Amino acid sequence: MQTELSQQLGVEHAVFGFTPFPAVAAAISRAGGFGVLGAVRYTDPDELKRDLDWVDGHADGRPYGLDVVMPAKKVEGVTEADVEAMIPEGHRQFVRDTLAKHGVPELAEGEASGWRITGWMEQVARTQLDVAFDYPIRLLANALGSPPADVVARAHDRDVLVAALAGSARHARKHKDAGIDIVVAQGYEAGGHTGEIASMVLTPEVVDAVAPLPVLAAGGIGSGRQVAAALTLGAQGVWLGSIWLTTTEADLHSPALTRKLLAAGSGDTVRSRALTGKPARQLRTEWTDAWDDPAGPGTLPMPLQGLLVAEAVSRIQKYEVEPLLGTPVGQIVGRMNSERSVRAVFDDLTRGFEQAVDRINRIAEGSGPS
Amino acid sequence: MQTELSQQLGVEHAVFGFTPFPAVAAAISRAGGFGVLGAVRYTDPDELKRDLDWVDGHADGRPYGLDVVMPAKKVEGVTEADVEAMIPEGHRQFVRDTLAKHGVPELAEGEASGWRITGWMEQVARTQLDVAFDYPIRLLANALGSPPADVVARAHDRDVLVAALAGSARHARKHKDAGIDIVVAQGYEAGGHTGEIASMVLTPEVVDAVAPLPVLAAGGIGSGRQVAAALTLGAQGVWLGSIWLTTTEADLHSPALTRKLLAAGSGDTVRSRALTGKPARQLRTEWTDAWDDPAGPGTLPMPLQGLLVAEAVSRIQKYEVEPLLGTPVGQIVGRMNSERSVRAVFDDLTRGFEQAVDRINRIAEGSGPS
Repeated sequence: MQTELSQQLGVEHAVFGFTPFPAVAAAISRAGGFGVLGAVRYTDPDELKRDLDWVDGHADGRPYGLDVVMPAKKVEGVTEADVEAMIPEGHRQFVRDTLAKHGVPELAEGEASGWRITGWMEQVARTQLDVAFDYPIRLLANALGSPPADVVARAHDRDVLVAALAGSARHARKHKDAGIDIVVAQGYEAGGHTGEIASMVLTPEVVDAVAPLPVLAAGGIGSGRQVAAALTLGAQGVWLGSIWLTTTEADLHSPALTRKLLAAGSGDTVRSRALTGKPARQLRTEWTDAWDDPAGPGTLPMPLQGLLVAEAVSRIQKYEVEPLLGTPVGQIVGRMNSERSVRAVFDDLTRGFEQAVDRINRIAEGSGPS
Repeated sequence: MQTELSQQLGVEHAVFGFTPFPAVAAAISRAGGFGVLGAVRYTDPDELKRDLDWVDGHADGRPYGLDVVMPAKKVEGVTEADVEAMIPEGHRQFVRDTLAKHGVPELAEGEASGWRITGWMEQVARTQLDVAFDYPIRLLANALGSPPADVVARAHDRDVLVAALAGSARHARKHKDAGIDIVVAQGYEAGGHTGEIASMVLTPEVVDAVAPLPVLAAGGIGSGRQVAAALTLGAQGVWLGSIWLTTTEADLHSPALTRKLLAAGSGDTVRSRALTGKPARQLRTEWTDAWDDPAGPGTLPMPLQGLLVAEAVSRIQKYEVEPLLGTPVGQIVGRMNSERSVRAVFDDLTRGFEQAVDRINRIAEGSGPS
């Protein structure tokens, strides 16, 4: 699984693994892929520093990267309190009612809600970058739009490649115009924020739209057959996020959530605005159903929705309230049926890839598959 | 592009082309694929006979098939008039208002509406089969559920393979249990009736669910790269419908509709219940927007919706009322940018397939693509 991009980055397999867990990121790089640590949850620079130290110490000298969330639209001088004030009381009541209906306990006094909107704000992302550029990261990815020009320049000064996610050829061309090095084509079937165009159509469309820039295919990929299919469509690599959630190195802090992921089928996700205000694929739960119910108040736009539900999501996770408990994950969840090590996932990917290539060669030679 | 299935059927390429146009079906078979004529519009057995005569006379002795619509749920003794009576007046008024808003003229006195619900009824499909079994068809496909057991038996008696569409592994297993020979895995990105699971995830899931039955991948396929990707995912062939709509052999009877198809991007379709009452991907138009608008009356269940809108759709098509003019088509419409012959499409598919296989081999060998 060698492409020009994997060779440029010095990795054995053109498999990029996005994960919020340092242990998973390091294990992906050790296994011959390219581990990318998601930074959005690090509002404290010291925590990010601690975890990057850990990754750097456990990646065996292999390359790794960082994923930040810099919204494309800059909001100058707006504080979290300003945003809080924009949330209608009716929506707050709906959150309280939905939690009460399911008997979700309160957090203890002084206990912080885990996820904060601040991780989505540009100043926080910039603080993360100040930390990250002290480490030998080789890739900086941005999940929402192109990063600002000065960030791209700063990365390029340090020989760091910049990647950005796109759900359409139009978005991908914007990234190219902004000087991005790699486009991640995020298909409809992917976990997290995603558009309407499925990978089978999106991947070649984005490849052609930004050539000769390399494209990573994201969405629906969790087996070697799917890696082979994505590379066949013209991608220079694959970007996998969901598949790592049920690895032994992942630390979901919730046996109930792990059980739900292992049990879920490919039809058990939904593309919902419940989490952030923008459509994001996640496990379908009674929580997403409540937000998507036409009889309810509906979701608020980003960033209001994320702020509105932050504490509720923390409570649901902490107390593992099963009917409401979810996580961003793609349709590939239907194939995440056992807990495996990151290494075992890689062994499966490479073996499946080889078998798929053998199969397509037999078909091309006219001898038929078997 | 040879698989066990294409060898069994004696065709050069494992490319199955579904089309309502006899000239396209025959051209697909002549080009080395497998042409499948859609029968749903033939309420008059003599018309079907005439068109099958034509296909048989123009396929140069190559194999071809027929696609019928037999609803999985049998409705005994229900006439079109019974169904008509179940449509609320408010919905009829909404149709009249929407057409009036766009100045859509009436049909002439005595002019029949083109599409009738009767084509969806089992007795009509059985009449179609009585005609079709007099021809050397090699494949009988059913678009909605498994065909009845006696139909499967009748097909097998005549050495006709039976295929059925499925949007999930669960549906696919039902088909296998019903004695179906081939499952068409219809991905989210496909035109017409389709489910929520995208081809990248659905194809391998269905392949594994019904093995050793052969699976055809449908949805998002219109180039050789995509054919190669689908076969890499484990399919024994591909099932293409949309791509033929803009071939020179197709007869849409509407230059305006052809222009719209050629101009549409991959994001210009919508999965809407507007046409039949079940979610079907089609061009997004002001007509689908009106039905999907929460402020409107919403759609009726199948078969009521199809009957309700039949005359309206005929009027929109006849008078080419552009804002309302649509057709079932998949996300691949973004790549249908020129009118080409069926033969030119096949040349493009085979050339693109070979290039894609070369590319994946270079990646597998570690020499990188270029």
